[in-house]
Amino acid sequence: MESGKDLRITLIGAGTIGLSFAALHLSHLPASSHLTIYDTRPDAEQYIRDNLPKFFSKASLPRSTSDVKIATSLHDAVSDADIIQESGPENLPIKQDLWAQVEKHAPKDALLWSSTSGILASQQAQKMQDPTRLLVVHPYNPPHLMPLLELVPSPSTSETAIRRTQDFWRARHRVPIHIHQETTGFVANRLAFALLREAIHLVDANVVSVAELDRIVESSMGPRWAVAGPFKSYHAGGGPAGLEGFFNNIGDTVQGCWSDAGNVNIGDGWEDKVFAQAREVYGTVDIAERDRITRRLLDVLEGERGKKTL
Amino acid sequence: MESGKDLRITLIGAGTIGLSFAALHLSHLPASSHLTIYDTRPDAEQYIRDNLPKFFSKASLPRSTSDVKIATSLHDAVSDADIIQESGPENLPIKQDLWAQVEKHAPKDALLWSSTSGILASQQAQKMQDPTRLLVVHPYNPPHLMPLLELVPSPSTSETAIRRTQDFWRARHRVPIHIHQETTGFVANRLAFALLREAIHLVDANVVSVAELDRIVESSMGPRWAVAGPFKSYHAGGGPAGLEGFFNNIGDTVQGCWSDAGNVNIGDGWEDKVFAQAREVYGTVDIAERDRITRRLLDVLEGERGKKTL
Repeated sequence: MESGKDLRITLIGAGTIGLSFAALHLSHLPASSHLTIYDTRPDAEQYIRDNLPKFFSKASLPRSTSDVKIATSLHDAVSDADIIQESGPENLPIKQDLWAQVEKHAPKDALLWSSTSGILASQQAQKMQDPTRLLVVHPYNPPHLMPLLELVPSPSTSETAIRRTQDFWRARHRVPIHIHQETTGFVANRLAFALLREAIHLVDANVVSVAELDRIVESSMGPRWAVAGPFKSYHAGGGPAGLEGFFNNIGDTVQGCWSDAGNVNIGDGWEDKVFAQAREVYGTVDIAERDRITRRLLDVLEGERGKKTL
Repeated sequence: MESGKDLRITLIGAGTIGLSFAALHLSHLPASSHLTIYDTRPDAEQYIRDNLPKFFSKASLPRSTSDVKIATSLHDAVSDADIIQESGPENLPIKQDLWAQVEKHAPKDALLWSSTSGILASQQAQKMQDPTRLLVVHPYNPPHLMPLLELVPSPSTSETAIRRTQDFWRARHRVPIHIHQETTGFVANRLAFALLREAIHLVDANVVSVAELDRIVESSMGPRWAVAGPFKSYHAGGGPAGLEGFFNNIGDTVQGCWSDAGNVNIGDGWEDKVFAQAREVYGTVDIAERDRITRRLLDVLEGERGKKTL
């Protein structure tokens, strides 16, 4: 259904994530399909018309932002939707009440997606009659640009809902990854925050500055992992014995780093120094410029993957 | 001196790292300068002539591999060198003896660099009379491609030696970062291994597979951190309040991930599963292909940095 015509997608919440998803959907929406946005703010229509165009960076689009329908009630927004995607506040009671309401008004086979970065689908579904269609679809910000989508079902989510969700995103050339267990922070953030934790320790201990640490990552792991993730990289680095060879060769150094890890926590007192360095060196980051360059890299990578060389 | 003419660079050790550095030096060596390689293997000359060309991937080079002098004794290799760079075995007694020998024969102001990934300069220097010229210059493999060089002096290394080393690499458009304290594993590996540790935990706990985890990183942090390191990225993500705003917004999720971290160790029993998955999904990695694509990304990034937009 999701790849066919007359697809009806409804977005709930027109914040930064919601509008970025709107731009992404518009870029891939067939002419016969429909995008609806619902937001509880009083000036929703004007706000969306004013801000949605900011999320487009390519010149030609199949659909214009005027094709978006702005719903004025939740009932109108979801009553004939095939996909309902919420990007609302990160607040458990709000999400629980939302899905209970959505369930009353939406078609029985509509897919229900949450953009949450932290509230598990199993928690969000607790006031629902039928939790089988609800799963987390967690983007890497901004979703109109970054390919990753973490699909995190609850134990109650059906295999069909997961498969339909994967098919939808694959058809749009995104990278939907099924996370097989509900886990605090999902996977991408857990990995990134593990590195960030050590980064904070190294700045706090005056080993390097915030700016030096960023330049290290930009000149090493960043480009490397854009091409080959950490396991593939270390498997390649281990010679004929692969990842096992890598650990045979420098496992002592790896364990040495692990045993010596900083393991800072929030409130330990590193905050003032680290925040001040970031403010001083970066001020206000030019996000449009960052995204423009990121898109150039992603275009290279997508082209290479299209050639099946990656 | 290092940026002038008649520069004499001597490499000790013609393994993978040594030859990759040789390719890098040849790419930037003025016509009047000299590159010498010394290796203790009996067939050193033939081995180097056969293998060095494999490290070149650009069509035109200012110097050919036949310009390399293969020294037949340590004395001959270092007696008139301006820079002596060792990429020998990761073995403390070998390095200590090497530097004691080098010191006897090399000019008094020659820079002494070690490519080690784990043996501190202060340890390597323990049999030297004058440790002020020795520092670690740790590459991110392969050095002929990846821009990062971690400069890790010992407490005895002179400021002059550090500055000369930085100047040398900056003149060659590399990214030399001064690590201000000798630290287990230096900085890049500590950061990468912190992420790898959590990655191993997530695969061991069946949250994702090796292949899924790599795709997550390749589609999110990899390209993002190639453009903007972790601090800059989260500073941008925190809105007007920067990194502090980021922690105000989702600090609870960050701490939740930290508190829930896997913290695996070598020998915990994850090895068989993780190594087997890597073998099964990747077999033998096509490193030349990986490096070709990485170079495309680095060319984009270098061009953007040249425009001073990064």
